[in-house]
Amino acid sequence: MEQKNKPVIEVCLSPALLHLYNVADTVVVIIDIFRATSTITAALHNGAKCVIPVASVEECIRVGASVSGSITAGERDGKVIEGLQFGNSPSEYPSEFISGKTLVLTTTNGTRLLHMVTGAEEIVIGSFLNLHALCSYLVLRGKKVLLACASWKDKFNLEDTLFAGAVVDVVQNDFEINCDSARAALYLHTQSNGDYISFLRNSSHYLRLSAYGLHDELAYCVTTDLHPVLPVLRGKEIVSL
Amino acid sequence: MEQKNKPVIEVCLSPALLHLYNVADTVVVIIDIFRATSTITAALHNGAKCVIPVASVEECIRVGASVSGSITAGERDGKVIEGLQFGNSPSEYPSEFISGKTLVLTTTNGTRLLHMVTGAEEIVIGSFLNLHALCSYLVLRGKKVLLACASWKDKFNLEDTLFAGAVVDVVQNDFEINCDSARAALYLHTQSNGDYISFLRNSSHYLRLSAYGLHDELAYCVTTDLHPVLPVLRGKEIVSL
Repeated sequence: MEQKNKPVIEVCLSPALLHLYNVADTVVVIIDIFRATSTITAALHNGAKCVIPVASVEECIRVGASVSGSITAGERDGKVIEGLQFGNSPSEYPSEFISGKTLVLTTTNGTRLLHMVTGAEEIVIGSFLNLHALCSYLVLRGKKVLLACASWKDKFNLEDTLFAGAVVDVVQNDFEINCDSARAALYLHTQSNGDYISFLRNSSHYLRLSAYGLHDELAYCVTTDLHPVLPVLRGKEIVSL
Repeated sequence: MEQKNKPVIEVCLSPALLHLYNVADTVVVIIDIFRATSTITAALHNGAKCVIPVASVEECIRVGASVSGSITAGERDGKVIEGLQFGNSPSEYPSEFISGKTLVLTTTNGTRLLHMVTGAEEIVIGSFLNLHALCSYLVLRGKKVLLACASWKDKFNLEDTLFAGAVVDVVQNDFEINCDSARAALYLHTQSNGDYISFLRNSSHYLRLSAYGLHDELAYCVTTDLHPVLPVLRGKEIVSL
């Protein structure tokens, strides 16, 4: 019986390394654990019609004004941006609030990376909140996968890489690993022993957000499979598959 | 008693991320474990007068012709480059051969990174072969440190990051760690449990070089403190401090 070649899974640790990867015919997973992709996952699972990721505050306000039933959202330094209505916290979007609405969201890192990826087969959203829904989809598609970490202003971060390692851990029997970034992510995930909060306690972003009193938010963002949904980019909108 | 602020130690995982770091007033450690910085360390400890790192084969031949008592060296794909005399293997340079000579060396990743760093306080060379000599020097200098991984054509690699983690592990009480790359490197080093060969066995570069039959070379390159010397860049030459 002929053995079918497994598709390759790779990890890009920073948007500044994205040019090293060929994304043609590839499912690209955008990862911004603290907190854009966690918020997108939560909002869509709780019934948001779609999420429109935008680059700037100005665009956020403009798009928000042109779409009925929309909510504008974005944070800088842990606070809602002036001129927008809500923040970048997954817990802000329960179903009784977000159901049926359009979330227009601007964030520093996740949105930027999403707009940098061009020519991919498909762009999907990953977070601990939809880990297994995402993994099942990646295995089902059977395409090459690039796990793309949004990082922090192009600098490597632990939480996005840890999540990439969680994905590699789940799907490793169905994919070929031929990149050291994927191996390192897997090692780091193994090292965490599933206790993500302890593992991330000294990380840059955890410390930054903790200083804003966002401990509960951080714990929310590393809760596995709380929102089993598969957000995919369709045109300019992220919708639930 | 006033507590003196500790200097910061950071890790740059790829030359493509170097622009994110301010190297002013910083000791930059160039890391290319397989094998440029291992070879430089071995040659200098075995009595080479100096090592001149050059970017191209043409420059290697030209500089070699102009310096008496010099040896030209470089490899591509595990073979000595045509027109050069020797390869990029630390074990090729025992003292009875290299003592008093100038090694003119061209490599793909390490040399390129070394030439990319501008404006640093000092540039030094790190490898497992001089781990503790390097660490003692970094502590003694008491300056900010950037551990700069040469990686593989800008892609993250495990062996350079593992070594960065070994350095962070040794010096962590004398430096402040405020970057996730340094934390990840330390986690990876902890995960290796000191068994570097097993840890690297599936890494891209290990597999590549193993395929050329270079197992012994790889084992040599992860031998700790075999060549306790501190190579520093002075002008265009790397010399032993």
